[in-house]
Amino acid sequence: MKALVYHGAGVKAWETVPDPKILAPTDAIVRMDTTTICGTDLHILKGDVATVAEGRVLGHEGVGTVVDVGAAVTNHKVGDRVIVSCISSCAVCSYCRKGLPSHCVGMGGIGWVLGHLIDGTQAEYVRTPFADTSLHGCPESLTNEQAAMVSDIYPTGFEIGVQYGDIHPGDVVAVIGAGPVGLAAIATAKFYGPAKVIALDLGRSRLDRALAMGADIAVATSDDDWVDQVRAHTDGLGVDVAIEAVGIPDTLRGCVAIVRPGGHVANVGVHGVPVELPLDTMWIDNLHLTTGLVNTTSSQMLLSLMEGGRLHPEEMVTHRFTFANILDAYDTFSRALDHDALKVAIHRE
Amino acid sequence: MKALVYHGAGVKAWETVPDPKILAPTDAIVRMDTTTICGTDLHILKGDVATVAEGRVLGHEGVGTVVDVGAAVTNHKVGDRVIVSCISSCAVCSYCRKGLPSHCVGMGGIGWVLGHLIDGTQAEYVRTPFADTSLHGCPESLTNEQAAMVSDIYPTGFEIGVQYGDIHPGDVVAVIGAGPVGLAAIATAKFYGPAKVIALDLGRSRLDRALAMGADIAVATSDDDWVDQVRAHTDGLGVDVAIEAVGIPDTLRGCVAIVRPGGHVANVGVHGVPVELPLDTMWIDNLHLTTGLVNTTSSQMLLSLMEGGRLHPEEMVTHRFTFANILDAYDTFSRALDHDALKVAIHRE
Amino acid sequence: MKALVYHGAGVKAWETVPDPKILAPTDAIVRMDTTTICGTDLHILKGDVATVAEGRVLGHEGVGTVVDVGAAVTNHKVGDRVIVSCISSCAVCSYCRKGLPSHCVGMGGIGWVLGHLIDGTQAEYVRTPFADTSLHGCPESLTNEQAAMVSDIYPTGFEIGVQYGDIHPGDVVAVIGAGPVGLAAIATAKFYGPAKVIALDLGRSRLDRALAMGADIAVATSDDDWVDQVRAHTDGLGVDVAIEAVGIPDTLRGCVAIVRPGGHVANVGVHGVPVELPLDTMWIDNLHLTTGLVNTTSSQMLLSLMEGGRLHPEEMVTHRFTFANILDAYDTFSRALDHDALKVAIHRE
Amino acid sequence: MKALVYHGAGVKAWETVPDPKILAPTDAIVRMDTTTICGTDLHILKGDVATVAEGRVLGHEGVGTVVDVGAAVTNHKVGDRVIVSCISSCAVCSYCRKGLPSHCVGMGGIGWVLGHLIDGTQAEYVRTPFADTSLHGCPESLTNEQAAMVSDIYPTGFEIGVQYGDIHPGDVVAVIGAGPVGLAAIATAKFYGPAKVIALDLGRSRLDRALAMGADIAVATSDDDWVDQVRAHTDGLGVDVAIEAVGIPDTLRGCVAIVRPGGHVANVGVHGVPVELPLDTMWIDNLHLTTGLVNTTSSQMLLSLMEGGRLHPEEMVTHRFTFANILDAYDTFSRALDHDALKVAIHRE
Repeated sequence: MKALVYHGAGVKAWETVPDPKILAPTDAIVRMDTTTICGTDLHILKGDVATVAEGRVLGHEGVGTVVDVGAAVTNHKVGDRVIVSCISSCAVCSYCRKGLPSHCVGMGGIGWVLGHLIDGTQAEYVRTPFADTSLHGCPESLTNEQAAMVSDIYPTGFEIGVQYGDIHPGDVVAVIGAGPVGLAAIATAKFYGPAKVIALDLGRSRLDRALAMGADIAVATSDDDWVDQVRAHTDGLGVDVAIEAVGIPDTLRGCVAIVRPGGHVANVGVHGVPVELPLDTMWIDNLHLTTGLVNTTSSQMLLSLMEGGRLHPEEMVTHRFTFANILDAYDTFSRALDHDALKVAIHRE
Repeated sequence: MKALVYHGAGVKAWETVPDPKILAPTDAIVRMDTTTICGTDLHILKGDVATVAEGRVLGHEGVGTVVDVGAAVTNHKVGDRVIVSCISSCAVCSYCRKGLPSHCVGMGGIGWVLGHLIDGTQAEYVRTPFADTSLHGCPESLTNEQAAMVSDIYPTGFEIGVQYGDIHPGDVVAVIGAGPVGLAAIATAKFYGPAKVIALDLGRSRLDRALAMGADIAVATSDDDWVDQVRAHTDGLGVDVAIEAVGIPDTLRGCVAIVRPGGHVANVGVHGVPVELPLDTMWIDNLHLTTGLVNTTSSQMLLSLMEGGRLHPEEMVTHRFTFANILDAYDTFSRALDHDALKVAIHRE
Repeated sequence: MKALVYHGAGVKAWETVPDPKILAPTDAIVRMDTTTICGTDLHILKGDVATVAEGRVLGHEGVGTVVDVGAAVTNHKVGDRVIVSCISSCAVCSYCRKGLPSHCVGMGGIGWVLGHLIDGTQAEYVRTPFADTSLHGCPESLTNEQAAMVSDIYPTGFEIGVQYGDIHPGDVVAVIGAGPVGLAAIATAKFYGPAKVIALDLGRSRLDRALAMGADIAVATSDDDWVDQVRAHTDGLGVDVAIEAVGIPDTLRGCVAIVRPGGHVANVGVHGVPVELPLDTMWIDNLHLTTGLVNTTSSQMLLSLMEGGRLHPEEMVTHRFTFANILDAYDTFSRALDHDALKVAIHRE
Repeated sequence: MKALVYHGAGVKAWETVPDPKILAPTDAIVRMDTTTICGTDLHILKGDVATVAEGRVLGHEGVGTVVDVGAAVTNHKVGDRVIVSCISSCAVCSYCRKGLPSHCVGMGGIGWVLGHLIDGTQAEYVRTPFADTSLHGCPESLTNEQAAMVSDIYPTGFEIGVQYGDIHPGDVVAVIGAGPVGLAAIATAKFYGPAKVIALDLGRSRLDRALAMGADIAVATSDDDWVDQVRAHTDGLGVDVAIEAVGIPDTLRGCVAIVRPGGHVANVGVHGVPVELPLDTMWIDNLHLTTGLVNTTSSQMLLSLMEGGRLHPEEMVTHRFTFANILDAYDTFSRALDHDALKVAIHRE
């Protein structure tokens, strides 16, 4: 089959590799019908993620069709249309039982293995471990593109941004970073009845999109007084919840700067360097700071809200490609601001 | 009256000052019978706390007798033995109503005003604002020394360490720093059924005391392999909850180093400088980091457990003085390790 | 002044009574500009509430203007437009500090005293105890009618229905009883992102209004197969949360009949007789059943959401009167179904 | 093999039946080394549980040795000493993923199948479905008798009594019924730092045992003034949490009678008839009433606390038998009060 293979920092190719095979009775083989690219894939290609070996097929998102199952798989059968979750979960270990498959002991302490420690979904076929709990049946009424947004983007924004942020009705919520995950946080923040959701980003076009996708207010962090602008939308004490969806020191410190005493900072961004935080002023502020890899435990719930028309994941897909031109998809996605791109969908021909 | 007055960095005196008077109908005047010194007082005397003006009477802990009340005070009357809470609470503002009087808007956004923004308890008399909600009636069966530990030490260890740390039955809990607040966290951690409480400190004598006061295991952070020692007391993945009760960068990073994915770090320590945290590895670990000033909302509950013999605050007081030699008390407390001191009690003659 | 006085079962009069006076330094006197009638007032008039003495002025809801304050009141001043909360809260007792002023010890163990144990708001003037914490400043942008819905109706539907019901995003929620409180529960259930809210009532006109005010689905409990109809809107196992807003045995048992294993039944209705519940089948079903008197701790939050246009309390007021014809208001409200009435507003001329 | 077979109301026999076989790749066959009898088995034998067919092998508790495993079982292997959980969990369905395997959809909507819908553990061998998640490896340091108490008794007392009761530090907790499950609730209530645990039962010998096993206070419900006695151990308002561990109307109403406003009633008892509850007074009291079948999600945690010596399950076993005289074990257990019996252990010879 053909797949997108990582050959070390900066080098990738769409090339022929061996077809995947069932290795364990809990495996399934899925023919990928729609896949997409994640910001994490770009990190890998920069050589930032040391745990990704050369020769690895990338990708941890997408929708496909089951073509083979191991003897122990009972939840899915050949022919089923399924969503591949970015997290594989053994369902048995202490982390999985606690609702934290992000650190599944059965997968070696990390639930994210696809396109990371084993071959992934930017391929014609993929082997998915623990298929019963790591694939989701795709609701009839959702397109592949819609459903593919549940592999990673929406659960990440919701679980690590919104749920860890602990939003309550009436809260003022700020989201720094209006890329796909930030927008997913903005959209799903609405499930907890906030008074206002403030989108923050550098760029006007991203802010306009955030407003279109559910933010109530947009503030450009390129403005010198952006912190004051945010505070002006509160009682002056700052926001209740600040969600970081960028992954650099300045934006995390920005979240700390705008959150009120007793507030929550939920870090969703993937950081590449340590961050100096002002503990000398934070210690007294009763702040909660959370970090995390998605668990995808909310996926079924998010799918049901999409089916009911309460979420609009189709707004997230801005560009479309086929497997044959997946390198163009990478090119577009890696220069997302130039292309005004959010998620790119890559379809089987 | 006589009081311990701050005269700028490094300068303090036990000297005559005007007697306090009722200023608002919600005030009370308390004759201090027993007071004590907090690590924060030492910070102030170093000049670290810019918000403390010269001329300020220090102290935010102690037990005394009500000698005057404003017209609106109904909960306490002249002659009552009362515990002065380190936090003053208006009970009306949004923060007080949410259980966060640490940031009482009625007190200007900070519930800690005694010995900070107004004159405090290291004095023969003190004016306490919002007396109805900021003084606690002292249970008959408790000594002044025992009860004075509820002004700050026990609620701080419990609320900011144990409750923010979110300990569950069966958890392995580590507490770095076996000073008074760390020991209060160790003692009150037991209220959530941990499998093991590990005390960490540099010094052997503090660790021995921690074992005597309820820790199950003691590890010296002076050992090069202390992180490994801690992990060896878990399943290898680290502790569920790490409580920081020192207030320096190394100990906070130490907490991050020993906590397992999905775990909690509760910072109780007062930090004087920013702290660089390894967000580049933390981002994926589903960690919760909390900070905070005590709310003293648990004081009544802690008193009831002391009355029932489930807490032993008398173990916390190692040295005794009278007001006349309060400077000796400061000397002893400021060299606590040399004197093997925890809390010093200072009594009216 | 004139007031609506209860003279024993079935007897009421709009008559002259002495003006209220400040009795405690925490009291305020409020000139009532808008009041309303609650279902509980009808219960009282039937003689069902033995704790209401003859001669009592009824009413526990409304908006007015402060005309006098006691010496200890600092949060409100003469001339302020205020909302009278149906719950009076001393802010000091253990119940108030825990967020349960419904059982305020300072008020004798019950926060609902107005129009019950002391004279109430269906009068030209009312004395409100603990005014600092029992009156809410009325936001400029809200009309009296809108704001009066925060005295009782919206907090009751939200706190005792929605919050006690513990709604989560994606849940299917059923509300039995589409009167004012049930409609408030339907409207505020939306703050937790339910997949569907099902309104249940006997009458078609009430169901139509429920659909207009936010319900997704309406089922008539006059249909023999109403339980099956409800289940058909779930996966067959029943709803996640069932809210009882009527107060009779059949509707509470109906809630138990439609809720799934692991689900919640939140009783909001005022019951007049004991209820036999099928514990012989319920014991195994991991059900949570809650009851409660409102705390009005959510009032400020609800006001902020009304100001932001996220709640529409004006939809709740169907009929308008002046104090002079308050008896007509009672007549209309007591035959609400005939008049298609929800809340009646009674204004000062 | 030999097994204890139910032959309709009142009829049981220890007789030869076919050996169990692996039916699904997720099954295991366990040789029972130690089993026990549950109060539920007595209910079945009375004919009260219509879902138990004649010919069924009873029993849902015990410890044994794995003798065969299906192809998909990876967590346990032949020769392992294992604890059979009374709840079988597919780990995949929505209930299992939510931590509610008590209602496992994969098992047909009820996790309790052993000795109920399929053959159970009062036998020389048993087939256990979904063995990976329904058996627990038995810690080396625990005896079979100790470990068998984790099949059902301790998780039930802890999850359905203590956790659903929502005990907080400082609470006063009452447990009505000092049989095995009530005693497990008393012992595990201590993990949440209650001020006092009050045991209630009719009989003095049970109360003495409750005091020996951790209760602070014992009150005989045979005393006419038992409600007043309980209230006298509180501030007069009643207990914070009342746990029902009997299963009859009077004891459940007794829980309602002794619980304070805002308190919790956790029903653990198995009820055979409906219960009339005083909703006419309860509606205003902000009570939470819970029911439930155990999930056994706490089993691993309870085992770790037993290994650490924080629980003493050996105190629960009062009588010992072998399989050959299991009918004597039934006789003793069915007249538990006469024999002063708690749990009976039945061992393989």
